[in-house]
Amino acid sequence: MEEPGSIRPGGRTARVRAAVLRAAGDALAERGFAHLDLTDVARRAEVGKTTVYRRWGTVTGLVADLLTDMAEQSLPRARTGSLEGDLRANARLVRKTLADPRQGALFGAIIAAATSDTRTAEALHRFYARRIREWVPCVEEAIDRGELPEGTDAEEVVRAVSAPLYYRFLASGDPLDEATADRAAKAATAAARAGAYIKDEQARPIL
Amino acid sequence: MEEPGSIRPGGRTARVRAAVLRAAGDALAERGFAHLDLTDVARRAEVGKTTVYRRWGTVTGLVADLLTDMAEQSLPRARTGSLEGDLRANARLVRKTLADPRQGALFGAIIAAATSDTRTAEALHRFYARRIREWVPCVEEAIDRGELPEGTDAEEVVRAVSAPLYYRFLASGDPLDEATADRAAKAATAAARAGAYIKDEQARPIL
Repeated sequence: MEEPGSIRPGGRTARVRAAVLRAAGDALAERGFAHLDLTDVARRAEVGKTTVYRRWGTVTGLVADLLTDMAEQSLPRARTGSLEGDLRANARLVRKTLADPRQGALFGAIIAAATSDTRTAEALHRFYARRIREWVPCVEEAIDRGELPEGTDAEEVVRAVSAPLYYRFLASGDPLDEATADRAAKAATAAARAGAYIKDEQARPIL
Repeated sequence: MEEPGSIRPGGRTARVRAAVLRAAGDALAERGFAHLDLTDVARRAEVGKTTVYRRWGTVTGLVADLLTDMAEQSLPRARTGSLEGDLRANARLVRKTLADPRQGALFGAIIAAATSDTRTAEALHRFYARRIREWVPCVEEAIDRGELPEGTDAEEVVRAVSAPLYYRFLASGDPLDEATADRAAKAATAAARAGAYIKDEQARPIL
């Protein structure tokens, strides 16, 4: 008999889903979206092919469910007591994910697929929308504490932390070290304090 | 007889290269990297297949040359007299490129290919390195004018302008409007002024 807590809750259906999504993530990280195949995923997951086809239907359906699971499994936001501390935790988490061989390859594969597949793009956008919402309270609390000006666009501050890391990862290829993550948090904090993310920028010029 | 200036300089070789790279860009934008084929590019360009194979050899070789040409053809940096003005010009140029249907699809296709193809990734990184170097003097002049602290990492400031635009384009899917470009320039300026991009950040803490 297994120890309580040693398996995911939800019984067989949840265990099948976990095994299939794990296998789908492995296949994506190893071979990319173009080679993703439900029969191969079923074999890797040691789950019946019929189950996989019936439950997920298509590779885009499977990737969409994988992204839902990734959003659900992602770490909750930080609560360090300062905006820069919270944003640094966020930046380090994003950096660690992108720099991790499996996770980085997985994100690369999904982002690549999203450039040409509308349903994958929609699922990807939902993933980031959820992750951004998770971290928004860090910015809202900073506004409440008086660390940031009223009217600051909290979502845009959270996006600003991830952006330099994704730019290096996908475009420029510059190193993704921890100093880069910390600088992303510092820059987003400084820009937010200066009012660069106030929503109606016309109404409140900064200097 | 053609008017002076109505054709690209360099004669037939340059005209063949221009036609082939134009056709390669069209094919990439329409069908993506996986379907790029030298025979199809030769047909689109109305150039002999043998010429294309002899000169470019492989699709990765062709994409690398396309990126070299894109860097050469890109607009020079702005000279508005202020850092935020220069960075706004840069942000608007990047935004216009990514939001353009053909150019956006072309960049998406190349970035997608670079996630799994090392030679394409290297060519892409060279492209961004050149574009960043082109705009670096805008930041260096701002340091000379006393707009920014000594020791500011000029390349990192330029990267910070593009990053939020690429993040929206490739990851979050949020709108790529001109207000977003202007905010990217404003945020990079504010963060740079606050010292967030000073190279040896340990030595010079900011507040």
